[in-house]
Amino acid sequence: MADQYAQSGEDSRPTETPVIRWDEPPEGPVLVLLDQTRLPAEEVELVCTDASALVDAIRSLAVRGAPLLGIAGAYGVALAAARGFDVDEASRALAGARPTAVNLAYGVERARAAYLAGLAKVGDSKTAAAMALAAARALHQEDAEASTRMAAHGLALLDELLPGGGHRILTHCNTGSLVSGGEGTAFAVALAAHRQGRLRRLWVDETRPLLQGARLTAYEAARSGMAYTLLTDNAAGSLFSAGEVDAVLIGADRIAADGSVANKVGSYPLAVLARYHHVPFIVVAPVTTVDLETPDGAAIEVEQRPGHEVTEVTLPQAPVSGGGGGVPVAPLGTQAYNPAFDVTPPELVTAVVTEEGVVSPVTTEALAELVARSRRAASGLGGIG
Amino acid sequence: MADQYAQSGEDSRPTETPVIRWDEPPEGPVLVLLDQTRLPAEEVELVCTDASALVDAIRSLAVRGAPLLGIAGAYGVALAAARGFDVDEASRALAGARPTAVNLAYGVERARAAYLAGLAKVGDSKTAAAMALAAARALHQEDAEASTRMAAHGLALLDELLPGGGHRILTHCNTGSLVSGGEGTAFAVALAAHRQGRLRRLWVDETRPLLQGARLTAYEAARSGMAYTLLTDNAAGSLFSAGEVDAVLIGADRIAADGSVANKVGSYPLAVLARYHHVPFIVVAPVTTVDLETPDGAAIEVEQRPGHEVTEVTLPQAPVSGGGGGVPVAPLGTQAYNPAFDVTPPELVTAVVTEEGVVSPVTTEALAELVARSRRAASGLGGIG
Repeated sequence: MADQYAQSGEDSRPTETPVIRWDEPPEGPVLVLLDQTRLPAEEVELVCTDASALVDAIRSLAVRGAPLLGIAGAYGVALAAARGFDVDEASRALAGARPTAVNLAYGVERARAAYLAGLAKVGDSKTAAAMALAAARALHQEDAEASTRMAAHGLALLDELLPGGGHRILTHCNTGSLVSGGEGTAFAVALAAHRQGRLRRLWVDETRPLLQGARLTAYEAARSGMAYTLLTDNAAGSLFSAGEVDAVLIGADRIAADGSVANKVGSYPLAVLARYHHVPFIVVAPVTTVDLETPDGAAIEVEQRPGHEVTEVTLPQAPVSGGGGGVPVAPLGTQAYNPAFDVTPPELVTAVVTEEGVVSPVTTEALAELVARSRRAASGLGGIG
Repeated sequence: MADQYAQSGEDSRPTETPVIRWDEPPEGPVLVLLDQTRLPAEEVELVCTDASALVDAIRSLAVRGAPLLGIAGAYGVALAAARGFDVDEASRALAGARPTAVNLAYGVERARAAYLAGLAKVGDSKTAAAMALAAARALHQEDAEASTRMAAHGLALLDELLPGGGHRILTHCNTGSLVSGGEGTAFAVALAAHRQGRLRRLWVDETRPLLQGARLTAYEAARSGMAYTLLTDNAAGSLFSAGEVDAVLIGADRIAADGSVANKVGSYPLAVLARYHHVPFIVVAPVTTVDLETPDGAAIEVEQRPGHEVTEVTLPQAPVSGGGGGVPVAPLGTQAYNPAFDVTPPELVTAVVTEEGVVSPVTTEALAELVARSRRAASGLGGIG
């Protein structure tokens, strides 16, 4: 039985292939991922039969993006449970695969809690595995719904901040349906503006070193029929100076209790430019991205990635000659500084848009209240487990 | 007879091959360039037998960098004159090959003026051609000398602004001996600090889209034995936040009368980050880069380069499949915004370092005085023609 949420809404998806789907062939259950490292050249699926294959896929960014990592983590736990592996061990490996995105740990923990609750209640690991899978599917569906609500709240905010429409939005990295059960976070807001005829242009940062903007956001924008233009990350300054940017919309991998936002490296320079040019800097993320356990920006662990992502260029079509599997562009032996994320302090963030509403100004109190409201809503709906 | 200045000082050069040299084989005079698009993979020379070949080399960035463009332009005029081509036509084509770097037009005009003065005085085009060549060689030598003086002034400024040494310098694009008759502009200052044991680290921006930082500055830094680290342009924000940058040093392609600085795209975001973090932002350039005919930043023409530089990756080792001669990374049909330069307003520039001294604060009056002083010095030395 293929996963219903991965199958649903295909019409509006940028790829023919679902980004993530649960499948149950005769050989046993598998988690099937669209390999995002191969886009836009080709749509190739990657089949994971255990959690360690999924850990590899997460580390290599075959599956990536904060909300999707949460969904993938939850399915990974369900997979370990369904195949009879050690669920605690799989959970630890999955949650630790990438340290910055809190959604990954959240998704893993949610499926693991469902599994343990099942075991405690029924004492049967098969039923417990089914409960873990149900938790993963619930998260997948909730993410799709959250996406729709973030888009609506985000568009309302844009219209309030920028009356008159004709928005020129700058975005960074990739935050559309490739990272979500639905249409994504920041990209979903731009897409909603586009559908209402209120998007004049989407400026797409290429997002070095792995070019998620050029490869993935441009791909999603093209398939959605948006007016979009690609630029190198360092060309954003010229756009701001020329008055060509009305707002910046980005996603988030973790939002600390004080409102500090960890997101793809390059977000912070955009926040500083936006402030200098009096342009709104808007973060769009589900409430689960807010991590009250992380007090501030300094407490966020920023993943450092291998230097070869910077010193070599990796293309599916190019021959391999560097140690990292790509073509060297810098002299051999060159050291690189390659943080995957940076942290933007709350004073540079105009607003955080979530499925539960908009927080602006971004304060510790407002975020705590948002999380509390979200938890009340979830328990009113019968719990989130 | 090979050009003496291209031959001199080879020990301290990062390449075995001179970046530019005049040669006179039996078939007639030629201008020989080190093809910078092939670095660091290989050192290949490009032989120009006429100005139009040089125009192509300038446009493709085989020869690049503000001071070197001036030298190349002057030699190009000398080449046209020596080969009996129309000198005015060659001068126009060369001066227009790239619009932003004022040094190119300056070098062309200087050799052309020498040629015309020779014609007027002697009436013999062969002698006039020799005078154009002498003018090119003089510019080449002056640039080498200016480089040494900029390095000394720049290092003194660094020591004044950052007492205690152990400088951590961030630089952008490539400004070393690959762009100069000497050791360059901003890079020469970092090199001087390195030789005095006062450079803790050179942070090298990779400089998208053409990776002059990764390919060329890393190459020069490695050959000079500097401690250097490469980063994507968008990772500079994290370095500033972490307090890891003591100063930014960049070159310039044109400095307007009001002190606005056109330099490689990505310079302006660094200036904004530097201001936000109270870090000095220092521009190093010869006086000829100051263009009093250009009143302000808005009057600087910024070259827009082809989109395929952003939408495709071009590697000598990779197969060609895109329309621009590279491997596509973005979906086909993607438009790109690709300005070669951006403009930093004078209020964000801590100082302009030239061979004639340091201008700080950067004001219209101070720059006009600098240019006047430089002209007086040149006329005291018997004129610049």
